[in-house]
Amino acid sequence: MTLCHIFVYICEFKTKTMEQSKKYLLSEKDIPTAWFNIIPSMPVKPRPMLNPATHKPLTVEDLYPLFSEEASRQELNFTDSWIEIPEQVRDLYKIWRPTPLVRARGLEKMLDTTAKIYFKNESVSPVGSHKLNSAIPQAYYCKKQGVTNVTTETGAGQWGAALSLASRMFGLELAVYMVKISYNQKPYRRSIMQTYGAEVIASPSMSTKAGRKIITEHPNYQGSLGTAISEAVELAVSTPNCKYALGSVLNHVALHQTVIGLEAEKQMEMAGDYPDIVIGCFGGGSNFSGIAFPFLRHNLSGERSTEFIAAEPASCPKLTRGVFSYDFGDEAGYTPLIPMLSLGHNFSPANIHAGGLRYHGAGSVVSQLKNDGLIDAVDIPQLESFEAATLFAKSEGIIPAPESAHAIAAAIREARKAKEAGTSPVILFNLSGHGLIDMTAYDRFLAGDLANYEVPDNEITDNTRDLEKL
Amino acid sequence: MTLCHIFVYICEFKTKTMEQSKKYLLSEKDIPTAWFNIIPSMPVKPRPMLNPATHKPLTVEDLYPLFSEEASRQELNFTDSWIEIPEQVRDLYKIWRPTPLVRARGLEKMLDTTAKIYFKNESVSPVGSHKLNSAIPQAYYCKKQGVTNVTTETGAGQWGAALSLASRMFGLELAVYMVKISYNQKPYRRSIMQTYGAEVIASPSMSTKAGRKIITEHPNYQGSLGTAISEAVELAVSTPNCKYALGSVLNHVALHQTVIGLEAEKQMEMAGDYPDIVIGCFGGGSNFSGIAFPFLRHNLSGERSTEFIAAEPASCPKLTRGVFSYDFGDEAGYTPLIPMLSLGHNFSPANIHAGGLRYHGAGSVVSQLKNDGLIDAVDIPQLESFEAATLFAKSEGIIPAPESAHAIAAAIREARKAKEAGTSPVILFNLSGHGLIDMTAYDRFLAGDLANYEVPDNEITDNTRDLEKL
Repeated sequence: MTLCHIFVYICEFKTKTMEQSKKYLLSEKDIPTAWFNIIPSMPVKPRPMLNPATHKPLTVEDLYPLFSEEASRQELNFTDSWIEIPEQVRDLYKIWRPTPLVRARGLEKMLDTTAKIYFKNESVSPVGSHKLNSAIPQAYYCKKQGVTNVTTETGAGQWGAALSLASRMFGLELAVYMVKISYNQKPYRRSIMQTYGAEVIASPSMSTKAGRKIITEHPNYQGSLGTAISEAVELAVSTPNCKYALGSVLNHVALHQTVIGLEAEKQMEMAGDYPDIVIGCFGGGSNFSGIAFPFLRHNLSGERSTEFIAAEPASCPKLTRGVFSYDFGDEAGYTPLIPMLSLGHNFSPANIHAGGLRYHGAGSVVSQLKNDGLIDAVDIPQLESFEAATLFAKSEGIIPAPESAHAIAAAIREARKAKEAGTSPVILFNLSGHGLIDMTAYDRFLAGDLANYEVPDNEITDNTRDLEKL
Repeated sequence: MTLCHIFVYICEFKTKTMEQSKKYLLSEKDIPTAWFNIIPSMPVKPRPMLNPATHKPLTVEDLYPLFSEEASRQELNFTDSWIEIPEQVRDLYKIWRPTPLVRARGLEKMLDTTAKIYFKNESVSPVGSHKLNSAIPQAYYCKKQGVTNVTTETGAGQWGAALSLASRMFGLELAVYMVKISYNQKPYRRSIMQTYGAEVIASPSMSTKAGRKIITEHPNYQGSLGTAISEAVELAVSTPNCKYALGSVLNHVALHQTVIGLEAEKQMEMAGDYPDIVIGCFGGGSNFSGIAFPFLRHNLSGERSTEFIAAEPASCPKLTRGVFSYDFGDEAGYTPLIPMLSLGHNFSPANIHAGGLRYHGAGSVVSQLKNDGLIDAVDIPQLESFEAATLFAKSEGIIPAPESAHAIAAAIREARKAKEAGTSPVILFNLSGHGLIDMTAYDRFLAGDLANYEVPDNEITDNTRDLEKL
């Protein structure tokens, strides 16, 4: 046996071994020690958020009454590319992080595609989604400055569940305003929050002025995220030692979520691949930013030319059909003015089962990136998302969250395109959560009881009429 | 700095690093290549199962009409200590295996105990429990011999969900008879099975003679595991190319579950510890056997003296109060006679939320081991199990399955004993599943709406009157 033979043998062995890998796992010491802040790398920085009263650029101090001081500083940090993850936060990340990077061989086989498909499995967190990545540092920063009480709102309940666990870990009392229709329709998520010890209040409620007003005027109102935000904010600012926490849209939330992409980067290296296409589903931007930004920095530095696709629901098409303008983050208009791709803060999306994607606007960083052509977006109809979800469950075993199903659907579109074109792109998507608590949606899909929702042009025009284009 | 200083520095660094570890992770190549069969190592072998018609020891061929041939052979294998895991089974194990071994530092802190507590986290499987460990090989062996259809029964739905996914992976058609009360009370588990493509039938049903008979006689009967078994067996034996699969009690099921303990053994070594106490919850024996047998072999060889504790519900106390005798595996009396610790095959356990533990008997191996004093058992009242579950959720983040909560409760008892005695035992328990689909139970617990169920002596005496003690 010559040296050359031995070399060939080793290569073949290595190939065989690599072919058999399903998951790429890191150890706890590989949990990132810093989050990646994309803003300093952006060719065009996002415009400043505006104080709604003065219409002047928001200062860090403007945010102190609402958020913890550290979260406020992170929100407006346009200079530091890396922000250290506190030791106590990393310790709690260890409960479920690093999460696996998985080669979706089952899905590839079922699609008979020439593409390689990978997914980052954020569904392994104890609350079943990526939301815990930001809930833990937000609770930590509150605790650190002596805050005792926290408030938030939740729609489908993913964020509420994550903040309930994080608050418990730091001994904070949490009040969650849960949109009334979800409170009644999704009792499991409510029970999860209560099991962790949070107080869950159906919104609108009689516990706040905003709630009492709307109940008095519309006794049967089933609630909205906008109303729930108003209630949570009102309780936070009127309670001593109390702060409010938000699970998406804002810069500091996207920042915390970058642990997803930073881990995935190392894992793709283990797999011997680099993604040609990175995909995340899109509600306000937290999981998409988390998987995309760390890879996007290599595009911005000119080293790579990866394609980034945000997969939003066709019934809430802010990225593809929204107006780039200053708009409020909530329906009632209490929040700062955010420079965002928006469908108008009064836009009322159809009642699709991907509750986490029913939001009218995109965060300021993603909006700027989209406006500058640095990321793409696609609209996924509800039925296509559930067809993708079911295919994924049958081939990879995991029943995905209805939100994550949008990313899967976009990945399947790309894999089918590749098959037709005879190309072999490396596709990476983020599986932001599992759907075990969303089985009602699957039941309805199997029963043929779900529909697609198109948004007529005039509905968007009407809702964005008063917005000034940027 | 002397060499001695450097040595001390390294040791301190190592200690510090080890203290910070939360999870002990293996790579895919560490998935065991063989299952451990404990029977050859047992000082007293279990008595043979008997053919119910002839009362003669069961032969492998007697089992062929029911199970796949390989499962039948494994069931009666009293000679091989190690049975190779087929490559295709190991490949599918990679979807979620190896599972993490976790140091329960949060729980230790909350209990302020001197004990070290570890748990093996089997809840990370895509169906949320350990049941997939046996569902995959059982489906594989069916496929391998050309079987096209599989039947089974399920109570709470953990086994049914696992076999639904395993059957889909091998392209087998599965019919699941689900106990009617669970079919109606646990719609999420039913939807999971249907999403994987299984047919789920509420039992009793009109699709079998056994079902039609009972519906005719008792139109409002809400079903039982015994009736569901009868229906699944009847369908299997009357359908060409169809086999039946069972998720607990039997030897081959316990065999497949030993991947749990075999992985845990390596992981405890990584952690630098060896368990003084190993705990599993107990229904028919599958997860308890899985975590215990690999460690028990070192007791049987005289190397170790670990304590093994099976945690059963106080409302179904087969191990602590059952009669060691030949009894049927089902209520109707269709199965072979099994030498088991039994409460009588007509024993009707209270409707506790740990549906997976509501079974009248223990498998023949565990029964023999218990009879010979090689393992212990404790009874856990329902309220204690939910108190333990809630404590665990708040300290470790994971909401456990009501079944697994019994193991946690037993571990907490041991940790409290250790604190009182000032000892520092190493406790290892198996977290067999998560409780995200059992939130109704938690809701009821939080509402103070759950009760304990004591079994009066005369109820056990009545049900075991006809059993001949071994």
